[in-house]
Amino acid sequence: MITITRRVEFSAAHRLHNPELSDEENRRLYGVCNNPMGHGHNYAVEVSVRGDVPAKTGMVMDLKDLKDVLHRVVHATCDHKHLNHDVPMLEGVIPTAENLAIRFWDGVARELKAFPGVELHQVRVIESRDNFVDYFGPSSSRR
Amino acid sequence: MITITRRVEFSAAHRLHNPELSDEENRRLYGVCNNPMGHGHNYAVEVSVRGDVPAKTGMVMDLKDLKDVLHRVVHATCDHKHLNHDVPMLEGVIPTAENLAIRFWDGVARELKAFPGVELHQVRVIESRDNFVDYFGPSSSRR
Amino acid sequence: MITITRRVEFSAAHRLHNPELSDEENRRLYGVCNNPMGHGHNYAVEVSVRGDVPAKTGMVMDLKDLKDVLHRVVHATCDHKHLNHDVPMLEGVIPTAENLAIRFWDGVARELKAFPGVELHQVRVIESRDNFVDYFGPSSSRR
Amino acid sequence: MITITRRVEFSAAHRLHNPELSDEENRRLYGVCNNPMGHGHNYAVEVSVRGDVPAKTGMVMDLKDLKDVLHRVVHATCDHKHLNHDVPMLEGVIPTAENLAIRFWDGVARELKAFPGVELHQVRVIESRDNFVDYFGPSSSRR
Amino acid sequence: MITITRRVEFSAAHRLHNPELSDEENRRLYGVCNNPMGHGHNYAVEVSVRGDVPAKTGMVMDLKDLKDVLHRVVHATCDHKHLNHDVPMLEGVIPTAENLAIRFWDGVARELKAFPGVELHQVRVIESRDNFVDYFGPSSSRR
Amino acid sequence: MITITRRVEFSAAHRLHNPELSDEENRRLYGVCNNPMGHGHNYAVEVSVRGDVPAKTGMVMDLKDLKDVLHRVVHATCDHKHLNHDVPMLEGVIPTAENLAIRFWDGVARELKAFPGVELHQVRVIESRDNFVDYFGPSSSRR
Repeated sequence: MITITRRVEFSAAHRLHNPELSDEENRRLYGVCNNPMGHGHNYAVEVSVRGDVPAKTGMVMDLKDLKDVLHRVVHATCDHKHLNHDVPMLEGVIPTAENLAIRFWDGVARELKAFPGVELHQVRVIESRDNFVDYFGPSSSRR
Repeated sequence: MITITRRVEFSAAHRLHNPELSDEENRRLYGVCNNPMGHGHNYAVEVSVRGDVPAKTGMVMDLKDLKDVLHRVVHATCDHKHLNHDVPMLEGVIPTAENLAIRFWDGVARELKAFPGVELHQVRVIESRDNFVDYFGPSSSRR
Repeated sequence: MITITRRVEFSAAHRLHNPELSDEENRRLYGVCNNPMGHGHNYAVEVSVRGDVPAKTGMVMDLKDLKDVLHRVVHATCDHKHLNHDVPMLEGVIPTAENLAIRFWDGVARELKAFPGVELHQVRVIESRDNFVDYFGPSSSRR
Repeated sequence: MITITRRVEFSAAHRLHNPELSDEENRRLYGVCNNPMGHGHNYAVEVSVRGDVPAKTGMVMDLKDLKDVLHRVVHATCDHKHLNHDVPMLEGVIPTAENLAIRFWDGVARELKAFPGVELHQVRVIESRDNFVDYFGPSSSRR
Repeated sequence: MITITRRVEFSAAHRLHNPELSDEENRRLYGVCNNPMGHGHNYAVEVSVRGDVPAKTGMVMDLKDLKDVLHRVVHATCDHKHLNHDVPMLEGVIPTAENLAIRFWDGVARELKAFPGVELHQVRVIESRDNFVDYFGPSSSRR
Repeated sequence: MITITRRVEFSAAHRLHNPELSDEENRRLYGVCNNPMGHGHNYAVEVSVRGDVPAKTGMVMDLKDLKDVLHRVVHATCDHKHLNHDVPMLEGVIPTAENLAIRFWDGVARELKAFPGVELHQVRVIESRDNFVDYFGPSSSRR
């Protein structure tokens, strides 16, 4: 197996808060991440795709195309935004790194259908040097 | 001259917006940094102090003390906060990296008065890998 | 599958030396890592756990809990210590990065029993930018 | 499973160009990477090997040996070279990161035959912070 | 004094070679950097400007403007190019990091004349993690 | 002014302890850094030299020469050593980052006398990502 990975970055605000829980429960669950006015991060997202390496191109996928996909799905939707308020793709979920990874997977996988022979392999969402999330897709998407 | 530098990090939201300007002027001035709901960063702050190196200790200043000063002035006030709303130290200024550097300088300099022989030398505020600010203090504080 | 990873760092001294071998064999086996007075590293440890993402929390596991586990198992035991002399958890093994990874796995796995639905997935021990070890657990612990 | 990873770096020029395609097709396929005079990168290569951890040594493999293998296969052949002209190991392929990973795998795997009990697990070729390739070997080499 | 710094990156090939010296002298002077087909780097350039911080904007200079200047002077001219052949700005000099820093200074200083109150302070050219150059301008440009 | 900087790394153990003080004073002064068996770091040292840029070479100083100087003064003396016991250059001083910077300055300055027109400008000793020391030499060595 061979994969290529492309990295994209964005800066955004978020707040961890479940509106179906009481304020007290939210504070206990999320601690300082529940502060009312929110906080923020420089996020990095690394997306890996797998496929064959045709002799003609020597590339699993044109990196320029992958860069464009990530720009549309990740950067254009999230950069300099508040993840709880400004991003339709994240509606209905608490903007944890886990949920970002799952939603980015869905968005990237949809765009990759235009590239036959290429499959999404992994989405890593890096919230800070000290914590990140890796998502390998829903069970049914694995070979 | 010899300096020691200590780094501290925090995650925060902010919005660049001058309430004395019109919405249109704010948008032109700050671009996406003026988005109404704000965005955020993983900030890093590097503070350098200078002094002599006494033979008895081999240290310009006890790093533990410097770490404590930075925790009080920077991390405890700003981490997981919204810089426009939650931080008294930043009241009255637009929370650009420049203004953060100046206010952190003031706060750290005040605490360093408790450490004779040590002078504040430089405050670096790193907003992202791609941009940072260095402040060397008001003219009168230079030797 | 989805995993969250948390990083913890510590600074320690160690010496690679097998007391059951002769001095000459130790020198041949470990080279400069066998120098009698030892040397040291800024270690980083990245621990990944896997589980489901409940809609209620949006988190595989509370990062604060994972941070606390790593502090107890890794940082409190090893930071500013000599790994050959000061760390009960490492008694009886040569403190290579491989053995650190295995012992950290054991310690973290034991603590994670208090968190139902969460399984330890990977322990990475980074000795320097140029070499690191990944441990995925004993065979029997894999799904 | 346990793996150890060693990193090696080199600086090289390359040009993405398939001599069997027209100039126009090459430009469309590779964009600026097809510029006639070439461009270059600081490459990093991370090679991971797996094996058991004998109690006698505590090491999957002597890191010094792995360092020597990587020096011979990667650094001595590619550092300060033009990958399209100066590197026999890359003859006949377009020097994409994918093809580099495959050829480095072949070269390292051949040298590792001298180390019984150690198997090559992964080769990562990092072209820049923003894109890298992971190769896990031809199907038949997997356990 | 306060400075803001913006970073820009580019990937390029180069060869250290003085056409007025013999091949033998070039080899002695530049070693592997003189290899005939050239090699390459992922360069990073950090440009610092100084000025006052007006209360109205809180910024020494609009970072977007500085980003645009660096794009025009550095990235658009050098990215995916061969520094000995493709870059008019570098004609007549050997493309060492020193000469890149000096020429980037000249190009950026010319563009900054459009921004009254802002002065160029420092240009850092990073060729690799292990070596970089800092240029503070010709003597006459210093305050 | 123009400077070139070269980085070198080493891994070493040390203990902060002043034999002229009581155990109790040492503990109060150095905290965990005084632990009897010592601890360690992956150190990085960045050395900057200044000079002119002759048109003939385009270089302040041959980087290969600077690399060799740093290898002799820093790496060969300190790598995989215990700084309190194994390094003659550090005898008589407590191995804080401050004292390392001063002794490295002395050693490098002595070797640079063989390179006319080149002056030592700065020595940075990085003990960890979170703290480092910058030394600019004794007063008399400044222009």
